[in-house]
Amino acid sequence: MTTPQTSWILSANDGHTHFPLQNLPYGIFSTAERAPRAGVAIGAMVLDLVVLDEAGLLPAAARGTFAHDTLNRFIALGQAVWRETRARLTALLAEGDVLLAGNAALRERALVPLSDATLHLPVEIPGYTDFYSSREHATNVGRMFRDPENALLPNWLEIPIGYNGRASSVVVSGTPLHRPNGQVKLPNEARPVFGPCRKLDYELEMGFIVGQTSALGEPIDVADAPAHMFGMVLLNDWSARDIQQWEYVPLGPFNSKSFGTSISPWIVTMEALAPFRRDNPAQMPEPLPYLRQQGPNAYDIALEVALQPAHASAATTVCRTNFRAMYWTMAQQLAHHTVSGCNVRVGDLMGSGTISGTTPDAFGSLLETTRNGAEPLTLADGTRRVFLEDGDEVVMTGWCQGEGYRVGFGEVAGKILPARTALA
Amino acid sequence: MTTPQTSWILSANDGHTHFPLQNLPYGIFSTAERAPRAGVAIGAMVLDLVVLDEAGLLPAAARGTFAHDTLNRFIALGQAVWRETRARLTALLAEGDVLLAGNAALRERALVPLSDATLHLPVEIPGYTDFYSSREHATNVGRMFRDPENALLPNWLEIPIGYNGRASSVVVSGTPLHRPNGQVKLPNEARPVFGPCRKLDYELEMGFIVGQTSALGEPIDVADAPAHMFGMVLLNDWSARDIQQWEYVPLGPFNSKSFGTSISPWIVTMEALAPFRRDNPAQMPEPLPYLRQQGPNAYDIALEVALQPAHASAATTVCRTNFRAMYWTMAQQLAHHTVSGCNVRVGDLMGSGTISGTTPDAFGSLLETTRNGAEPLTLADGTRRVFLEDGDEVVMTGWCQGEGYRVGFGEVAGKILPARTALA
Repeated sequence: MTTPQTSWILSANDGHTHFPLQNLPYGIFSTAERAPRAGVAIGAMVLDLVVLDEAGLLPAAARGTFAHDTLNRFIALGQAVWRETRARLTALLAEGDVLLAGNAALRERALVPLSDATLHLPVEIPGYTDFYSSREHATNVGRMFRDPENALLPNWLEIPIGYNGRASSVVVSGTPLHRPNGQVKLPNEARPVFGPCRKLDYELEMGFIVGQTSALGEPIDVADAPAHMFGMVLLNDWSARDIQQWEYVPLGPFNSKSFGTSISPWIVTMEALAPFRRDNPAQMPEPLPYLRQQGPNAYDIALEVALQPAHASAATTVCRTNFRAMYWTMAQQLAHHTVSGCNVRVGDLMGSGTISGTTPDAFGSLLETTRNGAEPLTLADGTRRVFLEDGDEVVMTGWCQGEGYRVGFGEVAGKILPARTALA
Repeated sequence: MTTPQTSWILSANDGHTHFPLQNLPYGIFSTAERAPRAGVAIGAMVLDLVVLDEAGLLPAAARGTFAHDTLNRFIALGQAVWRETRARLTALLAEGDVLLAGNAALRERALVPLSDATLHLPVEIPGYTDFYSSREHATNVGRMFRDPENALLPNWLEIPIGYNGRASSVVVSGTPLHRPNGQVKLPNEARPVFGPCRKLDYELEMGFIVGQTSALGEPIDVADAPAHMFGMVLLNDWSARDIQQWEYVPLGPFNSKSFGTSISPWIVTMEALAPFRRDNPAQMPEPLPYLRQQGPNAYDIALEVALQPAHASAATTVCRTNFRAMYWTMAQQLAHHTVSGCNVRVGDLMGSGTISGTTPDAFGSLLETTRNGAEPLTLADGTRRVFLEDGDEVVMTGWCQGEGYRVGFGEVAGKILPARTALA
């Protein structure tokens, strides 16, 4: 059987949309009339899964799991149900379908223009972990914050380094964030000062959503790890560099990150991403056995970051890179995370760490692009940036380029509001 | 009105029980016949709150919140309902009550011997944060892991340092844990080895449970922070020292902690702890304004750690200290946690950090007590310990000493099982 390529929803076939028939990402949406529920993006539309479920067109095993404000119940059903649902959705949306395309009343109820939909956080996130898996990023940061001669720490080539992030403040794309207040240590002052962050930054990341709960004490083998992933999102790990530099020793970043983390609203499934799986990066030294992978776990995902000041008429692309550049793979991250016995749960978010390429135009943070403020960036409207200003909007996007189509992630966008009046 | 002191449940009045009428801690319990539900410990009994609720004896505002396997719904009702419920429970259990004491059939259904009850994790924990607020502990650790001359890092006296822990692996007292496997760097080897932790440790901590959700972007003022706390538990932050030392730079502890964290099953409310509130510790330099507190936020809680090897006939007390010794208070921790705009949620667990006094017999971890293994500890049965061995059980306890009564936390206990077969 050939997988169908085109949909009877014409906006899915233009070659540029992020949401062709080959994608079918899951999200949570609401409209003026309807409370949050599960949907799938297709071209310029959202397909309401509750309507399809009630019409008996989705797998019986998934019955009732879509009428909620998170996808966790559906995801928890497991890989066989994800596959069956995807196959059913592909058939319903493919050119030639009659069950949905041929039923005008049902079609009318089941399809909502994306422009009429409000998108919500797609999952309840029980745990958020952020890794640090780009060699270029770790090297760039180490050079600026620590020792230029020994920028990469000795453990970095052995461990997919990660830390626990703050799940409560993960927000969906479009949620504005206030510039955080915090403690900053200025070089010429004996004591820290308290006030608005002066070095506010983005970090271009991707994240995967855990699709299967594991038991405490039972590691996930690296070979089994891919089956534990439901899908991926774009992630902006907003970072207050000045707060971070003062607070992070010895227990890691805390307030410099926990004021907000943004993710894209559509979860692109691992099944949709499968054609874009690529060979793993070379790793030297060869990792310890528990991190050695057989199959290819890298993914070819083009990524861009654009920055738009409050009064600028257009955004400027400030970074172009690719997820394939990461040193540690997601499978290695999950194997390492659980090798101690730590359990994971459905909906857990695992951030990749900042994705930086080898050249400044491929660096995934302003810290790196401007060398901690030393080399300002000039935007399209002529304004200059070292770090983010109030009113700036950061938009990240990403897609896999197929032949004549794109499996895309849409975008994760966020605008910076002024700091709240500082308490002191 | 005088607060009643004695209960018609005689085991609550012996002066030694941790659960007198003055305490009334909340937990989740099950029996052979009944699924997990909310209860209150009183003497040697558990009072079934579902039975009382169904009999109409609890506040209407709390109706229906006890018949669940976590306390989150009840806690989310807020301080006024906590107070009203406590007042009602105090009246029902006080000497002279007739509503419960005088109703034999109801009493029979509502009271379960503690020995017949299985205790569960009392709350669903959306986020777990662990602080590092004992000056003695931070100094001891800094001396061993970093620079003996500058043991306390410059930020420590300015910031209630903390990090995000792993909420998924928080378990209730009595849950055994496997010794974790992980990467360890031995001094004479070029590369790390993978295998069972060789320096397994406990950390004596307490934790508070957040009682009120806060909004993203809205800090909690230090003066308001106490009203956001529901109660406290004992906490054992199990730590794999050798894994920790290799992994923790630069993003903090990860696998060395995430294999398990144990808490005591009964949440002692802030209201029960109020008589034991004490003046704050002296802080020099004076903290930045957002951390300056008016009221007393320290608590006088005696703490002990006992260690019992697998075949020993008795446990040996290896630490005696007091929660009052902490430098940063819980109110300061919560104010700092949220000052960036980070939100907290009902059920969040905030660990104090290891509680160490000034002398070795008051150190809250074996790392400190044995000076990272240099000075073995001799237990009552003559065996020696530098770190934990398989089969060892660690039991932590704590109580506030009133006049003729104790408001106690019961215990948090955990036994170490052998490591699972290492993958490599």
